[in-house]
This record gives sequence, structure tokens and C-alpha cells, in this order.
Amino acid sequence: MQPQVRTVALELERALAKLFDQRVRISAAGRTDSGVHATGQVISFETERQFPFERLAIALNSILPGDISIRAADVVDQSFSARFSALERTYVYVVLNSEGPSALLRRYGYQYRADLDLDRLREAASALLGEHDFRSFCGTLPENGSTVRRITRIDARRQDDLVILIFAADGFLHRMVRALTGTLLEVAAGRREVDSVAEILNARDRQKAGPTAPACGLYLAGVRYADFDSYRAPPICNGSTR
Amino acid sequence: MQPQVRTVALELERALAKLFDQRVRISAAGRTDSGVHATGQVISFETERQFPFERLAIALNSILPGDISIRAADVVDQSFSARFSALERTYVYVVLNSEGPSALLRRYGYQYRADLDLDRLREAASALLGEHDFRSFCGTLPENGSTVRRITRIDARRQDDLVILIFAADGFLHRMVRALTGTLLEVAAGRREVDSVAEILNARDRQKAGPTAPACGLYLAGVRYADFDSYRAPPICNGSTR
Repeated sequence: MQPQVRTVALELERALAKLFDQRVRISAAGRTDSGVHATGQVISFETERQFPFERLAIALNSILPGDISIRAADVVDQSFSARFSALERTYVYVVLNSEGPSALLRRYGYQYRADLDLDRLREAASALLGEHDFRSFCGTLPENGSTVRRITRIDARRQDDLVILIFAADGFLHRMVRALTGTLLEVAAGRREVDSVAEILNARDRQKAGPTAPACGLYLAGVRYADFDSYRAPPICNGSTR
Repeated sequence: MQPQVRTVALELERALAKLFDQRVRISAAGRTDSGVHATGQVISFETERQFPFERLAIALNSILPGDISIRAADVVDQSFSARFSALERTYVYVVLNSEGPSALLRRYGYQYRADLDLDRLREAASALLGEHDFRSFCGTLPENGSTVRRITRIDARRQDDLVILIFAADGFLHRMVRALTGTLLEVAAGRREVDSVAEILNARDRQKAGPTAPACGLYLAGVRYADFDSYRAPPICNGSTR
């Protein structure tokens, strides 16, 4: 939600208001800042109006602009919240690790020229696993609430001239995946020591970490709940990234 | 080239004119109508000006808009023409064979809901292989010149919810791949008989063939020359389509 700006949330609430003929407020599972993509976003909302839910995705897709699409819709228990019931979020970051740019991928990956040593990247990433205070990797601090999160997985793999990073955690702070990516790419490029990642964590200072990687490379790929998982790999990833 | 419209050819000639400080006319290997993508287009041009060619791709990419990128540049024999020296062109057509639309793929694939029987499609395609008069699959007829072409390969494969069609020929007529695709999809969906394809060819009448599939699904993937092949699969295709 950003006033005066066209956002996914705004377009969704507008489409839902049209269908339900009343104001509908949505709750979203994961952050997708401007320019960030989502293949596995989940939203929830409450309404008292009747609607044949097996046709809701089709109805929404017919109203929504082409750059937002609904995969499925279902009725859930009233206690369910897309945001607060989520157990784990998975983000994928796509790096185009090539000399030259790609016209087709310019909005779907981040071009990074340097040679990347993925073993160095994985070694550095291991210091980030588990529960830590990620203040050093946080953009805007939460107004109230902790900067402690639990990262359950960081992985990196090469696919032709793409390097694909995968991050899973109970939740992520503002711009956290992009700050982690910017830092880990510097380690992989040999511009930053493998050990430095633990030092950055301890410093609890955003200035110590690397740059925020661009939004275009980032995908919210899936959200896991007690009995449901919305995961879907970005279209340019071969096979699963899970 | 379309007057008053922003085209790839125009942008390329503009960028080359800036670098060489003179009017440069390009020759392109394959058709890419408005909305069609290219991962393996080849262009050639002649100039008497000096330029360090190992830096030409970098220089062009720094001038060109982000939706056009150059992979490589090289000096060739004066007799070489990107268009007339080409031995074979390969086009890939990407179908999103799913119930609902995809926001991320809406400009990179054609959503087609019907169940597709790829064995039927391949059987129908076999009638198109070899040298034929493809007038029935031609949009605007060539002003002078034949409508006979030699198709060397048509293949279809499934990759998750994508169906990927591959066409190789010595050359293609205006909108020929899209007319072939529109027709073959109708066969695969069971809306048109497998045998009908041979009848369409014989009729030499565009009205007999199926609809022109949308531009967004089409990619010029590669051009083969006597000693060079520009082939690269579209980014959403897993592995080679060759």
C-alpha cells in the first residue's frame, strides 16, 4: 500500500470491492516492494457477502490488470490470516551473471558481471542460518516488534548464466533479502571476506552490510502454512528451487 | 521497419549512426513483427569507418534502450549478409497451457486453455515437413518471390504447464510460424482433423488454415550460417530447444 501509487494491494482491493460491492481489506503473506515479483503470494480477506468461491479466481482475473493474476481461491477458517498464519516464506533472487545485459531478462533478474564463487557464498551464508538479530540487513526498522528472524535455508545454484539464490525464513524484515543478496554477492565476487558476514550480524548496523540488490531480481516464491504451501518457482528457474 | 513506429531496426540503425557518425543500413536474418521476441537474431551492416569491434557490443548496449541487447559483434567477409547468407532459421513458440493466466508470462507466452494432445500435433506437423508451397500459411504475400519454403523440423514438448513448439526452415513467410501454430494448436485441441493440414497446404488459401497465434509467444531463437550459429533458447525454456 502506497498512497497515490498503483500497487498490487490496491488493485486487488479494488477488484474485490467491485465483486463484493463493499470495501474489502486484504492481508498479504509477504512483502513485495515496487518492482519485486511474486509467484507464490497469498492474501486473505473477510467478507459477509456470498460468492461462489470456485469461480472467484476466474472472476478476479477477468477484472484485474494483466500484470496481476490469481492462481486459486478457497474458503478458509475465520482464524486464518495470510500474514499471521504463515510458518515460512521462501524468496528466490535471480542474478544474470553475464558480461552483457539481456533485453528479455532486464526486469526479471539482476545483471552482475563479476565471476561468482558459489562455494564462498554458501560458506558465508551458513553464518546466517538460524535465529539472529538481522538489524544489519534491515531497511526501514519495524515500528514496533523485533528484528530477530529465523532463517531456515539459504542456497545458491547455477543454471546456464543465471545464479539463483533461495532464502527461506519464518519472516523477513524490510529489504532483508535484497540486503542479504547484495552482501553475499560481494562475498562470492571476492570483494568481501567470508568471515565478514558474522561480523556484520554482530554489528547490528545496516552500514556494515553490502548494498541492497535491485528489486527486479527478487521473487516471493512461496508461503508455507500448517496445511498448505503456495510455492511456485519463478518461470525462468528450471525445475523446483525448493 | 515501420515508419512512425519505434522498431528494433530503427533503434539499431540510430545507435549505429551515433557510433559511426554516418547513416548505417542493417540487414536482419529473420522477421520479428511487433511483439515478437528474439534471442538469436543476427544483423549485418557495412561501414568504411574504423571501430574497435571487440568493443562494439559494449558500446551499442550502452546506447540502446534496455529492451534491445547485443550479445556479440564480429567482422565478417564483405560477401556476408545476415539475411541472404542464412541457411536455416529456428523459431520457438511458447504456449502457456493452463486454466488461468500468468502475470509474469503474459508478454512471453500465449495462454491456451484447451487440453493439448502433442502426439496429434506431431502427426499433423509431419505433413508440413519438407519443401511445400506455404501460401495457405502466409500473411502478406511476398511482393515478388516464391511462397515455397523447406521446413526441416517441427517439434513439440511439454515443460510443466508450458507447451513449446519448435520450427526450423530455410526461411519463413510473413506470419507463417504464427499461422502454423494457430492451426497445429487446433489440431492438438481436437478441433481440427490431423489430415486437414495436408488439405490446407494443397488449397493454397490462407482462409483454410487456423488463426494467427499471438505475437507474444513467438521467439526467433537462432540462425544458422555456413560457419556460425546464433541459437539461444528463450529464457523460460529449460535447456536447449534445438
